[in-house]
Amino acid sequence: MGKSAPDALAIDLGRLKADIEAVNGIGRIEGLPGINRISFSDADMAGRRWLMDRMEDAGLDARMDAVGNVFGRWPAVSGPAVMAGSHLDTVPQGGPFDGTLGVCAALEAVRTIKAAGLDPARPIEVVCTADEEGRFGGMLGSQAICGEVGPDWIARAVDDAGLLLAEAMRAQGLDPEATVAWDPSDIAVFLELHVEQGPVLERAGVPIGIVDAVSGVFNWTVKLTGEANHSGTTPMDCRRDAFRGLADFGAAIPAILERAGGRDTRLTVGKVTLEPNFPHSIAGAAVFSVIGRDVDETVMRNLAEVCRSEIGKAAERNGLVSEVAEQSWLPPTGLDADVARNLVEISRTYGMEARTMSSGAGHDVQTFARHCPAGLIFVPSAGGLSHAPGEWTHWADVECGANLLTRAMAAFATST
Amino acid sequence: MGKSAPDALAIDLGRLKADIEAVNGIGRIEGLPGINRISFSDADMAGRRWLMDRMEDAGLDARMDAVGNVFGRWPAVSGPAVMAGSHLDTVPQGGPFDGTLGVCAALEAVRTIKAAGLDPARPIEVVCTADEEGRFGGMLGSQAICGEVGPDWIARAVDDAGLLLAEAMRAQGLDPEATVAWDPSDIAVFLELHVEQGPVLERAGVPIGIVDAVSGVFNWTVKLTGEANHSGTTPMDCRRDAFRGLADFGAAIPAILERAGGRDTRLTVGKVTLEPNFPHSIAGAAVFSVIGRDVDETVMRNLAEVCRSEIGKAAERNGLVSEVAEQSWLPPTGLDADVARNLVEISRTYGMEARTMSSGAGHDVQTFARHCPAGLIFVPSAGGLSHAPGEWTHWADVECGANLLTRAMAAFATST
Repeated sequence: MGKSAPDALAIDLGRLKADIEAVNGIGRIEGLPGINRISFSDADMAGRRWLMDRMEDAGLDARMDAVGNVFGRWPAVSGPAVMAGSHLDTVPQGGPFDGTLGVCAALEAVRTIKAAGLDPARPIEVVCTADEEGRFGGMLGSQAICGEVGPDWIARAVDDAGLLLAEAMRAQGLDPEATVAWDPSDIAVFLELHVEQGPVLERAGVPIGIVDAVSGVFNWTVKLTGEANHSGTTPMDCRRDAFRGLADFGAAIPAILERAGGRDTRLTVGKVTLEPNFPHSIAGAAVFSVIGRDVDETVMRNLAEVCRSEIGKAAERNGLVSEVAEQSWLPPTGLDADVARNLVEISRTYGMEARTMSSGAGHDVQTFARHCPAGLIFVPSAGGLSHAPGEWTHWADVECGANLLTRAMAAFATST
Repeated sequence: MGKSAPDALAIDLGRLKADIEAVNGIGRIEGLPGINRISFSDADMAGRRWLMDRMEDAGLDARMDAVGNVFGRWPAVSGPAVMAGSHLDTVPQGGPFDGTLGVCAALEAVRTIKAAGLDPARPIEVVCTADEEGRFGGMLGSQAICGEVGPDWIARAVDDAGLLLAEAMRAQGLDPEATVAWDPSDIAVFLELHVEQGPVLERAGVPIGIVDAVSGVFNWTVKLTGEANHSGTTPMDCRRDAFRGLADFGAAIPAILERAGGRDTRLTVGKVTLEPNFPHSIAGAAVFSVIGRDVDETVMRNLAEVCRSEIGKAAERNGLVSEVAEQSWLPPTGLDADVARNLVEISRTYGMEARTMSSGAGHDVQTFARHCPAGLIFVPSAGGLSHAPGEWTHWADVECGANLLTRAMAAFATST
């Protein structure tokens, strides 16, 4: 792949901004902050129909598959496609860019490539996946495209309220019994532009992140059991205080990271329940989550081992019994090294500062990466905030990221 | 006071056991463990009427005052009384001895003293106080006897469900507008026998505790505020994790006690709430209780100061803001040194091993101690358990404690 994309490949930020603002007019709820395009809601489907109209306006061949994925294809040539996009569904009270940026930027990229008079040898598919935010527990759209889930899985999936996915799909005219899987060889490469959702780029003052791996994650529920007792009558040396075990483990986190962690390691206790959770009672039990992440599964294994050891020590020191229940163990996903190298090269060519980094959050790209070459571009999140109404990315960074996506799409579509 | 009580002053354990078992037949709920004589319930009032009948059977002059306190007086002489007793109300699903032992043992003591042919110079008042367990927020019975609360307080008091104390009293034929206060000079001494509710005596293998002080207590609600964020995308060194601040404080408890605590110091974090309390989110806030106790107010002050300092350090280390709200500060109550010395002396005279100790829990005795000489005798709690159906004290220990109470009542009633 050569440096074939001309300098003229610069997106129209005003047009991209107008699209993002237009689609974010869909999913507003009176009296609530943020954007609510919950998967398979009327607002989500309205957003997808809005996108199909914009695709048609731009001369793409727009269609929706049976699970709600939207595709826009151009030019009408055969062969493996350069697929680019993200999702338009949001978490409740979500932000304006999460997913939306990747979809709107991919469409703007095609407009830009067309306007520049390029004639790609490969078709481009702009994609908007269904239920990326996991209302029904997975990444339905990308997993259905990649053939990882189908009618059998769909038939069993329910949301937190117990509503069947199949029912939610039928209510929107979709078909839970259809198979929408692509032949992986029909996808030459998958590219996604997404907001970082973390503070790394902003703090480094770098506008572009090129992701080489998506972290794996282990999710534990730990229970420390001691003895509930009267906080006034029980001397300190007669206690089996489950809170004290929890605190000892929590205070050991820096030492655990020192011993077993790397630059990309994350270790979080985010949920804690004491029993009986009464000020005048010593805690008889502490139940808490431990979430560990890294891009290297060996690091994850070491981290897990050191965590188990420290939980054991904290229990022993306080006369407690410990139980560790592993809810899930998802290995890291490495993204395609050649794609990442190309993205770095294109950034350099156009003088855009970029840094290679990992993603701590999951994205559609990790599904595609199991089946075809795939790449992920990050732009900075102001204050690292995400999944909240205040989520924000500065327009200059949006422009920078969209230009890189455009140039990469053009490069992959015109190379042979 | 001399050693005037004869060896013959030994209670009838079978008779005391029969009383305890009989009254604990009142307040049983089908399908629930433990004893339920919640203050001012029908079961509570039935227990009090049962007691008045037993008092009359034993030749005491029994009566109930307008707030539900029951008294049984003997002999019919004038002058300041030797008052002894405790309470019959229980916590929900309470145990068989908490309060009940002190009431039944005081009645058994009078039977024993009468049977021994003693002719006390002072009247003895067996007392069963109302609402010691604090359904309505205080220690109503003892506080009303001592004139600390009256109709004004009663008119405002409500239980956790919002029911008015005055209404609960009227429903049982009691009079919330009456004043039942005694002239403190009419009480020569108040004596209470109670289960320890902690493990100290059992672990020491000592059957008797003679209490010299009831701990003071401070009750704080602490809030550490950081920043809620995505646990996957936020690097460890960019976090303001409120859980980590809580853990650092919890892990510092041994060092805090080392620096500011004494033998009787208790420091407990029993209640914790994280926000948002979601496994994949870094805690943006941690709200927790800190309860500190000691029998020495200077120690309490030092303890509080060191706690504040450690909370501040834990906050600073993790980039958090800390707020400490003091819910209450109750100073320690010293019990009468002469009464305690007399109890120790009587124990020695009769060859009963006793140890002087403090009480970490509150009891009626601390109300009386503010107005007249008062003493508290502890017997061991099996496993230190209390406020639970499994609360237990071995009958040999019950006998030992009841004998000491009997001999002390006889000594105080016959001395001049």
